[in-house]
Amino acid sequence: MFFEDYDDKITRGLLSGNRFSVVYRLYGDERTVRSRAEDICAEQTVEFPVRFLPEGAIPDAVLGRIESLEKEDDGRWLARISFADEIAAGEFTQFLNVVFGNISIKQGIQALKIYPGRGILKLFPGPRFGIPGIRETVKAEARPLLFTALKPMGLSAANMAVLASQFVRGGVDIIKDDHGLSDQVFAPFEERVRRCADAVREENVKSGRSAIYVPNITAPADKLAERAFRAKELGAGALLIIPGLTGFDAMRSLAASGIDLPIFSHPAFAGTYAINPQGIAPELIFGLLPRLAGADAAIFPNYGGRFPLTRDDCLGIARACREDFGAYEPVFPSPAGGMELGSIGGMIQSYGRDFLALVGGGLFNSGADLVDNCRRFLETLGQ
Amino acid sequence: MFFEDYDDKITRGLLSGNRFSVVYRLYGDERTVRSRAEDICAEQTVEFPVRFLPEGAIPDAVLGRIESLEKEDDGRWLARISFADEIAAGEFTQFLNVVFGNISIKQGIQALKIYPGRGILKLFPGPRFGIPGIRETVKAEARPLLFTALKPMGLSAANMAVLASQFVRGGVDIIKDDHGLSDQVFAPFEERVRRCADAVREENVKSGRSAIYVPNITAPADKLAERAFRAKELGAGALLIIPGLTGFDAMRSLAASGIDLPIFSHPAFAGTYAINPQGIAPELIFGLLPRLAGADAAIFPNYGGRFPLTRDDCLGIARACREDFGAYEPVFPSPAGGMELGSIGGMIQSYGRDFLALVGGGLFNSGADLVDNCRRFLETLGQ
Repeated sequence: MFFEDYDDKITRGLLSGNRFSVVYRLYGDERTVRSRAEDICAEQTVEFPVRFLPEGAIPDAVLGRIESLEKEDDGRWLARISFADEIAAGEFTQFLNVVFGNISIKQGIQALKIYPGRGILKLFPGPRFGIPGIRETVKAEARPLLFTALKPMGLSAANMAVLASQFVRGGVDIIKDDHGLSDQVFAPFEERVRRCADAVREENVKSGRSAIYVPNITAPADKLAERAFRAKELGAGALLIIPGLTGFDAMRSLAASGIDLPIFSHPAFAGTYAINPQGIAPELIFGLLPRLAGADAAIFPNYGGRFPLTRDDCLGIARACREDFGAYEPVFPSPAGGMELGSIGGMIQSYGRDFLALVGGGLFNSGADLVDNCRRFLETLGQ
Repeated sequence: MFFEDYDDKITRGLLSGNRFSVVYRLYGDERTVRSRAEDICAEQTVEFPVRFLPEGAIPDAVLGRIESLEKEDDGRWLARISFADEIAAGEFTQFLNVVFGNISIKQGIQALKIYPGRGILKLFPGPRFGIPGIRETVKAEARPLLFTALKPMGLSAANMAVLASQFVRGGVDIIKDDHGLSDQVFAPFEERVRRCADAVREENVKSGRSAIYVPNITAPADKLAERAFRAKELGAGALLIIPGLTGFDAMRSLAASGIDLPIFSHPAFAGTYAINPQGIAPELIFGLLPRLAGADAAIFPNYGGRFPLTRDDCLGIARACREDFGAYEPVFPSPAGGMELGSIGGMIQSYGRDFLALVGGGLFNSGADLVDNCRRFLETLGQ
């Protein structure tokens, strides 16, 4: 009635028939969750009263479609909803908008899994190094890698470089900036990256190691690419980025820019999605999404430390990082947050050998000599 | 013990003494919340065991500081925590990281208010048009403005342009793209923006109105600026952006780029922060942060529609949009989501006259003639 000039043949002719789907966990009784699932179909696509849609392709194919609705547990249901590839418009930003845009403002919905399908996968560069590429870089074939962070904020760039040297001497494989270091006056980006990259290189030469330094390039939108390429010039071995702050597409864009360095994803600012019942499941926000967006390693808050994720949450993240997924390389899960020497055994039991053991403050906790502490940590990781 | 090369005079000399503060709502008993407040001080800054920090400026000033801790209600406390300006590094991304980066992964914390102080305010362009600028553009001095969206997805650009003409004829002041329209094949960005901007311009000439068209420029990181400037060339009257997808700094960067158009902020993908007890309060995520980042109008999910925010939440957002805040112009709160003709009276009671009445599907609900429906809505808004 409102769209007399609408020509259904045109819209229909533009639809490939390819669809991607998302599994949502819905909370409530069957009637509530069915109505919620129907609501998602409209809210994430046409955002319009369904009864007023022009007949044809829009209600048939542009509107989301409930593929299944199954009971998971009392008061918990899993709805698989499919969407036409075309509504994602070939853009990661719009893809995320379809997955969880407006329904991020609605209660009782958790995005749990994504089945992108071939058409959507084209949007994603995926990891370019992954586990094999990072292992090759640091020359460690089988054991978990020892990973730490330069901190605390307030040290000078020269102080950070001394720490970096000690870490390499102790056998740490990967040394990143703490995620809060950006371009503070205490240790400005340019000077910090130069000094720390130099320190790691020199110590590698002395000790015959192959450690890498991973500066944090999270930055204002108009400076991020510049920092990434500058870090590469200065000798960085990989790049750390916080997609919660920059948007996931900034990571995708960086990976697609062709910069020849692995990307490490950090979970800051995105935790709210993961730890509330309404949100985006940990395995998705900290596992699959970074992997699709081009991360080669995904840092996440481990269970049993100072963060609230459960062991199952964390195993789900590790699975999303490493399971077969089309042509995508597996990426390193990097459990972190409050890890101590005594945690390593349990981590190996949980994660096997293909993980990055990110130990920050914990390296300082186990004795007065930092180099010795690193050595002890490395020993627990095996050969 | 670990930092023998650390020189406290250097760090101390780099601190201006200026601090910004954040009020967090903390859940729990007094002992729990005190320990949580102390934890925030370290987690958001040094992320390091406090007992191992080198004495001096780092624990004194780089570490966050609890300024007050007051009971709000049973099991709810308000902690005001201050941070040295320098740790935000002059960057909006790092500022947000300090406000809620790692603690986004911790339970029982809601960021409620920010007191930025003069040093931090320099980071933010703030609104460049605000309420006065938008009122001047659309030539409506006192009443709430009538605001709607082009939808449903699946219509062609030509169909959208017909809708836009009808909206202008009916008296709508501001016509935006639906937030899910980006660059879909049904109505590609370039063609849609050209046709809709032309339609609005022509209808303005015929009818003597001053309506504006606001395309959605939310896009992949490497295309956003291009779309913004192209939209301006094609005749857009303002720009719609979804900071939850692009990152808030993309909005700041756009506002700072000098593009001479108002910016409208959309809440999609950021709702999770607003509707969970752990997160960022609605007034902050949908009000103050967009305003600081350069939005001239802030769209948010109204109470009483299809979203779960309460009236108090919404009044808080409106207050954050309009209250005196240094040199910043007040910006239009734009309550939205399931608004009907019958909702307008209540909206005027709640929001006064300085708001945008965003009615989408509701314009189609109240009769078979779209132009008449718009006229009826406009009448309820007064002169």
